[in-house]
Amino acid sequence: MRASVLRDGRMVYRDDVPDPVPGPGQVLVAVKSCGICGSDLHFAAHGAEVMSLSGQMSSAAGGGMNVDLGHDVFMGHEFSAEVLEAGPDTETHAAGTLVTSIPVLVSGTNIEPIVYSNTTLGGYAERMLLSAPLLLPIPNGLSPQHAALTEPMAVGLHAVNKSGIQPGEAALVLGCGPIGIAVIAALRLRGVETIVAADFSPKRRELAATMGAHQTIDPAQGSPFDSVHPAVVFEAVGVPGIIDDVLRRARHGTRLVVVGVCMQADTVHPFFAIANEINVQFVLAYDPNEFGDSLRAIAEGDIDVTPMITGSVGLEDVGPAFDDLADPEQHCKIVVTP
Amino acid sequence: MRASVLRDGRMVYRDDVPDPVPGPGQVLVAVKSCGICGSDLHFAAHGAEVMSLSGQMSSAAGGGMNVDLGHDVFMGHEFSAEVLEAGPDTETHAAGTLVTSIPVLVSGTNIEPIVYSNTTLGGYAERMLLSAPLLLPIPNGLSPQHAALTEPMAVGLHAVNKSGIQPGEAALVLGCGPIGIAVIAALRLRGVETIVAADFSPKRRELAATMGAHQTIDPAQGSPFDSVHPAVVFEAVGVPGIIDDVLRRARHGTRLVVVGVCMQADTVHPFFAIANEINVQFVLAYDPNEFGDSLRAIAEGDIDVTPMITGSVGLEDVGPAFDDLADPEQHCKIVVTP
Repeated sequence: MRASVLRDGRMVYRDDVPDPVPGPGQVLVAVKSCGICGSDLHFAAHGAEVMSLSGQMSSAAGGGMNVDLGHDVFMGHEFSAEVLEAGPDTETHAAGTLVTSIPVLVSGTNIEPIVYSNTTLGGYAERMLLSAPLLLPIPNGLSPQHAALTEPMAVGLHAVNKSGIQPGEAALVLGCGPIGIAVIAALRLRGVETIVAADFSPKRRELAATMGAHQTIDPAQGSPFDSVHPAVVFEAVGVPGIIDDVLRRARHGTRLVVVGVCMQADTVHPFFAIANEINVQFVLAYDPNEFGDSLRAIAEGDIDVTPMITGSVGLEDVGPAFDDLADPEQHCKIVVTP
Repeated sequence: MRASVLRDGRMVYRDDVPDPVPGPGQVLVAVKSCGICGSDLHFAAHGAEVMSLSGQMSSAAGGGMNVDLGHDVFMGHEFSAEVLEAGPDTETHAAGTLVTSIPVLVSGTNIEPIVYSNTTLGGYAERMLLSAPLLLPIPNGLSPQHAALTEPMAVGLHAVNKSGIQPGEAALVLGCGPIGIAVIAALRLRGVETIVAADFSPKRRELAATMGAHQTIDPAQGSPFDSVHPAVVFEAVGVPGIIDDVLRRARHGTRLVVVGVCMQADTVHPFFAIANEINVQFVLAYDPNEFGDSLRAIAEGDIDVTPMITGSVGLEDVGPAFDDLADPEQHCKIVVTP
């Protein structure tokens, strides 16, 4: 079957990938739509570094990253799909049901994230395996393209939940890529009354406003902290230097939620953070309830993801789409439609 | 009068410091005892860096550091004292009353921390000024030496309060200098049932056990994280590299409380912290209630500070005492008795 795979840092189209065979508890599905995630771009460019950092962590959290970059890597974790057939002794939804799922594949007693793998297919493929107990039917006739955004929007929801922000507290969102936008949408959903978004790109600031920001700021015109005094700052940029800048400029008692994934070493001055008693909450992903909440919010129209989808490509064009996503004036989210 | 002042990075004895004159709302006191704080040692060695970092902060928090290192600097913020006389139109305790106070001097509408100053005397002096409304009488016949430890013990209390730790959660304290010890005492006071303390120094590990640690670890024998899985880590070392090591080794969801003041730039890998969703709470000082709680805990015998006091010097010997404190095998807290 057809798929797009990571090979030597580039996404390569293949039409000779063997069809996956569902085991007990698994379901074979046809991918309907799969969003391209910024972390996939980062992994394509810096996979070796990510593997090295992962290897340095003594925690079992790094266990999911047992990937050989010398062989093709399957990716794609923001997907919607159609049920084809269940594995042996497995009950699931009727064939043809549209579903989504947290990107986790259960194989017997093994639980593997569907993220970067030499063996487990992701959403950049015609067909893939999912876990029967984790399938969520897509409600309300929501389109598979929109349903594919359940995953990134859940990341924003989780970040906002972890922040404990209250409606009367001001939020500053640094960076308006897909994750920053997901945070803005989640803040709006939570009823936060002051949402300020900062990004160098006019297009992204425009999208931020469309998705719920009350005010947008161009950091080229001066630090957002010159005019805004947020209780909670969401860092959705993920490049070195941003965290330290927040520690230096933020008010006493500010909560900083780091949702941007900076994969390089970063320099900070603890002195700044101590003087202002900053709280830094690093966040990752979401829990299954938040994933369900995200799907529901999109399906019920509480979050309209339409403006986020700026492009759609087939499996043949995932490589060029990765390149196109580098331009913030052109794109927010490109979805792959096998 | 006599005082010890910071000049060119060294503590110098002087007998020609003019006596301070209390203004309205102020009280002239005779210093009975003043603890030497690790941050004073650091300021003596790295004052210029501290001033530079302070200057980089846009926040008003840096306002208290308006110090000219080219002139003598008064220090000493862990003090107990005896009331001598009140300023004009000022009611206060009877002369002879033993008191302590948060290290803050109110002069009209100006509120200045008593920490590093070219003009406002600290506790390394025969006499100093305090603010009448902030004075706390020392209860229960507590000795002035022990009362001088109210301030560092309040730092530990504040760190533990900010952590939100529950008695059933395990705590790991990294570094058993005076602040680490204050954290241990506060954890014990809160009823935390598993307190593990790590320090390279056998003497400090011994003191940690005396002050309430249930288990001590020598990091030279392996990372504390190899054997302990704390819910909350207190970083009381304050040297570069410690924070990143915790981020790399700690379990998912660990709360890291940074109470050690690292004044240099530090390198961290946000990747580690994100993968494990670490929460980092930077803390500074205490609030007035916590200061009062600290004095009460010492005076009522809930915290016995006796084992922490490892030396006592006069004003002439503050300089050598600064040098002696570099050796963890010799000293925890030296108090100055003018």
